[in-house]
Amino acid sequence: MAVQVSIPKGTRDFTTSEMSKRNYIFDNIKSIFKKYGYQAIETPAMENLSTLLGKYGDEGDKLIFKILNSGNYLNKIDEGKLNHENTTEITNLISEKGLRYDLTVPFARFIVQNRSEITFPFKRYQIQPVWRADKPQRGRYREFFQCDVDIIGSNSLFNEFELIQIIDEIFEIINLKVTIKINNRKILAGIAETIGESDKFIPITVAIDKIDKIGLEKVNEELQKSGLSDDAINKLQPVLNTKRNTQESIKFLSGMLKTSETGLTGLEEIKTIFDYLQHFQPKANVELDLSLARGLNYYTGAIFEVKSDEVEIGSICGGGRYDDLTSVFGMKDISGVGVSFGADRIYDVLTQLNKFPNETEKSSDVIFINFGKAEELKCIEIATELRKSNYSCEVYPQKAKLDKQFKYANNKNIPFVIIIGEQELENGNVTIKNMLSGEQTTIKNTEVIDYLKKPKL
Amino acid sequence: MAVQVSIPKGTRDFTTSEMSKRNYIFDNIKSIFKKYGYQAIETPAMENLSTLLGKYGDEGDKLIFKILNSGNYLNKIDEGKLNHENTTEITNLISEKGLRYDLTVPFARFIVQNRSEITFPFKRYQIQPVWRADKPQRGRYREFFQCDVDIIGSNSLFNEFELIQIIDEIFEIINLKVTIKINNRKILAGIAETIGESDKFIPITVAIDKIDKIGLEKVNEELQKSGLSDDAINKLQPVLNTKRNTQESIKFLSGMLKTSETGLTGLEEIKTIFDYLQHFQPKANVELDLSLARGLNYYTGAIFEVKSDEVEIGSICGGGRYDDLTSVFGMKDISGVGVSFGADRIYDVLTQLNKFPNETEKSSDVIFINFGKAEELKCIEIATELRKSNYSCEVYPQKAKLDKQFKYANNKNIPFVIIIGEQELENGNVTIKNMLSGEQTTIKNTEVIDYLKKPKL
Repeated sequence: MAVQVSIPKGTRDFTTSEMSKRNYIFDNIKSIFKKYGYQAIETPAMENLSTLLGKYGDEGDKLIFKILNSGNYLNKIDEGKLNHENTTEITNLISEKGLRYDLTVPFARFIVQNRSEITFPFKRYQIQPVWRADKPQRGRYREFFQCDVDIIGSNSLFNEFELIQIIDEIFEIINLKVTIKINNRKILAGIAETIGESDKFIPITVAIDKIDKIGLEKVNEELQKSGLSDDAINKLQPVLNTKRNTQESIKFLSGMLKTSETGLTGLEEIKTIFDYLQHFQPKANVELDLSLARGLNYYTGAIFEVKSDEVEIGSICGGGRYDDLTSVFGMKDISGVGVSFGADRIYDVLTQLNKFPNETEKSSDVIFINFGKAEELKCIEIATELRKSNYSCEVYPQKAKLDKQFKYANNKNIPFVIIIGEQELENGNVTIKNMLSGEQTTIKNTEVIDYLKKPKL
Repeated sequence: MAVQVSIPKGTRDFTTSEMSKRNYIFDNIKSIFKKYGYQAIETPAMENLSTLLGKYGDEGDKLIFKILNSGNYLNKIDEGKLNHENTTEITNLISEKGLRYDLTVPFARFIVQNRSEITFPFKRYQIQPVWRADKPQRGRYREFFQCDVDIIGSNSLFNEFELIQIIDEIFEIINLKVTIKINNRKILAGIAETIGESDKFIPITVAIDKIDKIGLEKVNEELQKSGLSDDAINKLQPVLNTKRNTQESIKFLSGMLKTSETGLTGLEEIKTIFDYLQHFQPKANVELDLSLARGLNYYTGAIFEVKSDEVEIGSICGGGRYDDLTSVFGMKDISGVGVSFGADRIYDVLTQLNKFPNETEKSSDVIFINFGKAEELKCIEIATELRKSNYSCEVYPQKAKLDKQFKYANNKNIPFVIIIGEQELENGNVTIKNMLSGEQTTIKNTEVIDYLKKPKL
């Protein structure tokens, strides 16, 4: 009887099949990042709590996994202080480190700490797990991967355009139809200004951000609760409840934002981005969506979100421009723009659409059945040749019943089984079975590579 | 002024240049693992402490990073108990999870937990960070990567042979000269038996394991302290202090182990492995080393260690056969064999020998200098073509001084700079500068790919 073993709730093991599919996603994403000159960095799983705390709001602080100091950590605390009321103080005394909550804050810390070695504009990507002590539920994990790409130290809108190119190429290469929605926080600020509620900019963006989830009516209720006047809410309706294409939205905004300098700047930025796009025909739909707000307050310019055209699910990629990421660590006036790919959701979409290539299920190209020592040596010889020609292959590690070995080949989705029995050995032959078609053929043992090279039906 | 930022001691940021070199190592290792049919798995960073504790000895338990429970963790403890004396008990009450200490125990847990989905023999590799609250020092980190490859559920010696093939190919592909040392714990047990000290098997292996670090004399002192008789220590000397080649060692053992069944079994195993090697000419030296012991007590058969022939450094790869890995989680009689690659040390060896390929320093193949909007659009067009032909390239994101843009190209080790100024734009040309040779040439803008394809001196 096996002992009951388990892993912490909200965490996952990734089996060989899951890893193969996840790597299909990550490898494709990385290949496009690299094509555009972005390079990988990594930061440690643990950061000093002084780096992490206060960056995600009070709720976020509570969700950071804290690491107990080593050694006799309690001895440093006066025993008189050890009681329930002092939990917060005690926590600060017994824990100095935490697990990273996202990649953004560690990245900002990285830039400041390594600034003398960094060439700006700095194009980096980062694919690492993050940890949050959130209540686990379907699709929400306590350990999950973030996949961020950013360019820091250039405020050119060329970068926004390049990110759209990257998003477009990535979803093309993994064969997903998507819509890339774009908006600009300056446009939203301009709208808040023209409806006379500039000081309510944050609650307005927070409310608009929920429109997909809770609907227009509830958004209006929230706006009312935030103290917006009925007049302002009325003026906001044409922004929220009309379907316009990008050109119509631009025309609409040209009218609405006439009196707002910020708004017009945002509109110019949007126009510039769409001008760029005319010189690069994206496969994805790219559209200006005025109801796109992005909740995160550090965005200051363009914002992006990507939706699947084929599956009803939240955004599978999102991001925007920020002008003040590193100032919390004392480095001011560094503008950047970036997006983050939601690997778990992309995985779910590909699974639902059955769009993972068959390749991701395959472990090796070829397996050699093992009939015992003499035949095994011939298998090793041919396997070595195949590997030199870049085929992955296995020799079953011991003599075993044929059906057991074939079951192994089946379970591991190995497309070709090579049989070298006594007779094949004697005649210098091999028998190859195509596991997909069931076809079996005997050829010279010098012709295996030629056989594998031939296209199969 | 930037705020003083830092990361926890013993942890590291990996810059773009370091990541590129690390990935060169990991990508090559993975490519060979895959060629032999091994597949990736991953386990969560956090494990339940019940999984981790008691597996690494008392010292190991202390070095596990423990994670503070979320919420009002102190309230669950009676206030009367909150004092310095109860530290251990309090730790157990306020922390249920820890960061993995190695990949071996989580792997054993993974096998038991996922056994119904696993096809045995199970060939897996795993490359993930581990965390230890060790005192940081040169070459010893609190966060470092392990890179393990194992096959579980087959006791065939073919697997030992295959691992030697894998080790050999990996060090060949990254261009390092190494010696693969092999021994067998059954031989060591046989030796302990024939010198009349079977019950001292563990202290004998622990002492022998240190011979490289502390020398023969100190090993003998340790053996004496462990209670070995002078007679036994005398009998052990021919095992330890004589340089023999593999054939001589086998002959020597045939005599010495005559009376030990276990010892002779080990010897037969070694002979089988070397028989296999005659059918696969390894590039590395492979030798039987009787002083190789491997301190870890879970090894039961073959043991391996790899040393650089070029740089004086500890072992850069090691492992062995174990017969009882999963029994601690209730799953008995599962034999496995595996090795672990020391990425940090391999990195140091490659650095010291200057053997990282130039490719690892390169960010993109090509950068386009940005002279302003009209020229930029032409750059985008050509860059898109180049990317379709798998070149990585960047367009400098804004108009800037030429020397600034060239400095960027230089810092990022980009080999080709493409210049499209007003004149080039007008004539349908581009000027390409080879940053290595300094050579500069003007060609038609349709001929860029042909130019890049040509071999450069």
